[in-house]
Amino acid sequence: MHLYTYFQSSASYRVRIALNLKNIAVDQSFIDLTKAEQHAVDYARVNPQKMVPSLMLDSGDVLTQSLAIMEYLDERYPQPPLLPKEPLARAHARAVAMLIAGDISAINNLKIRLYLKREFGANDEAVGRWIQHWLHDGFSALESLLARSPHTGDFCAGNAPSIADCTLIPQVFNARRFAVDLTNYSHIRRIVKNCEALEAF
Amino acid sequence: MHLYTYFQSSASYRVRIALNLKNIAVDQSFIDLTKAEQHAVDYARVNPQKMVPSLMLDSGDVLTQSLAIMEYLDERYPQPPLLPKEPLARAHARAVAMLIAGDISAINNLKIRLYLKREFGANDEAVGRWIQHWLHDGFSALESLLARSPHTGDFCAGNAPSIADCTLIPQVFNARRFAVDLTNYSHIRRIVKNCEALEAF
Repeated sequence: MHLYTYFQSSASYRVRIALNLKNIAVDQSFIDLTKAEQHAVDYARVNPQKMVPSLMLDSGDVLTQSLAIMEYLDERYPQPPLLPKEPLARAHARAVAMLIAGDISAINNLKIRLYLKREFGANDEAVGRWIQHWLHDGFSALESLLARSPHTGDFCAGNAPSIADCTLIPQVFNARRFAVDLTNYSHIRRIVKNCEALEAF
Repeated sequence: MHLYTYFQSSASYRVRIALNLKNIAVDQSFIDLTKAEQHAVDYARVNPQKMVPSLMLDSGDVLTQSLAIMEYLDERYPQPPLLPKEPLARAHARAVAMLIAGDISAINNLKIRLYLKREFGANDEAVGRWIQHWLHDGFSALESLLARSPHTGDFCAGNAPSIADCTLIPQVFNARRFAVDLTNYSHIRRIVKNCEALEAF
């Protein structure tokens, strides 16, 4: 398999963690987003959305969207599982992953930041406030979800890493990059510590 | 089961379609987003993210995030299925749903529009351009994905409705509301027509 990735892409980072957890080796191509390489004609043929990651299978089929890729990996290579067994616990894991991927990460994406600068004349400071706002907005909700759910354990969903943790850690990496204070998010910090003790992350 | 919903929420509309397709009757509460009812203390207890939909089960457990809710419904009430059987086709269905939910809908959400007005002084016209921009950005990519995938059929993934179609139709409803021209999206239009022939949508 061949992974199209970039080191500062949190969506790519999710898939790299999932591959590590499943001990799957892949070839990698680095698509430099700061040089707009995702817009190159050759890459648009790989992924018409012009985003990373993309996972090209040995068959030539290309998978896009990080959460869909992780679900595929989990169905195709079930051990170790990236989702709990019980439907309610699975729903919790997926809700955490989707909250982070949809309601934080997608909003703070590079193409959004470029639009804010281009169309609203936002400067770096205003863009920084935007990023911090949606990180806090999402992490506050996530902290409450983790606090109330009986499915929260050493990790976001139970006592083993799941797609939720694969999604959380790259977002925490971003939060640190943009100097977001995580003091109030004790469940998130506890889970991050448990994840970061694992080589796969 | 009890669904917290709002008629203009595309995320809620996804779940209503999924429930219809599975012929599951639920009680409903309407959370009026235009009156900020999602921020009421009682509702924040139901869903700490202060968004709709939320699905409260008879056990009192509350599920959030529309795609996670649809996956739960599909695991718990398998007939008729909301995902194809084959892993690659499932990945395609999920990628379509996540592209729409994450890279269009989450960006065009009410809370984002309010932030643009509040922090960037965006007027209605600028907000309208924002919405149209991300709709075209996402639909262009989606149209290419549907065109190239061997898993596209009468519906987004195969010849039966899936979570992808449950996610597409509410976004098309939004596109029409914001006067987005769908002429160039022939695959999307063909699938929408097939969906709209079904009572569940």
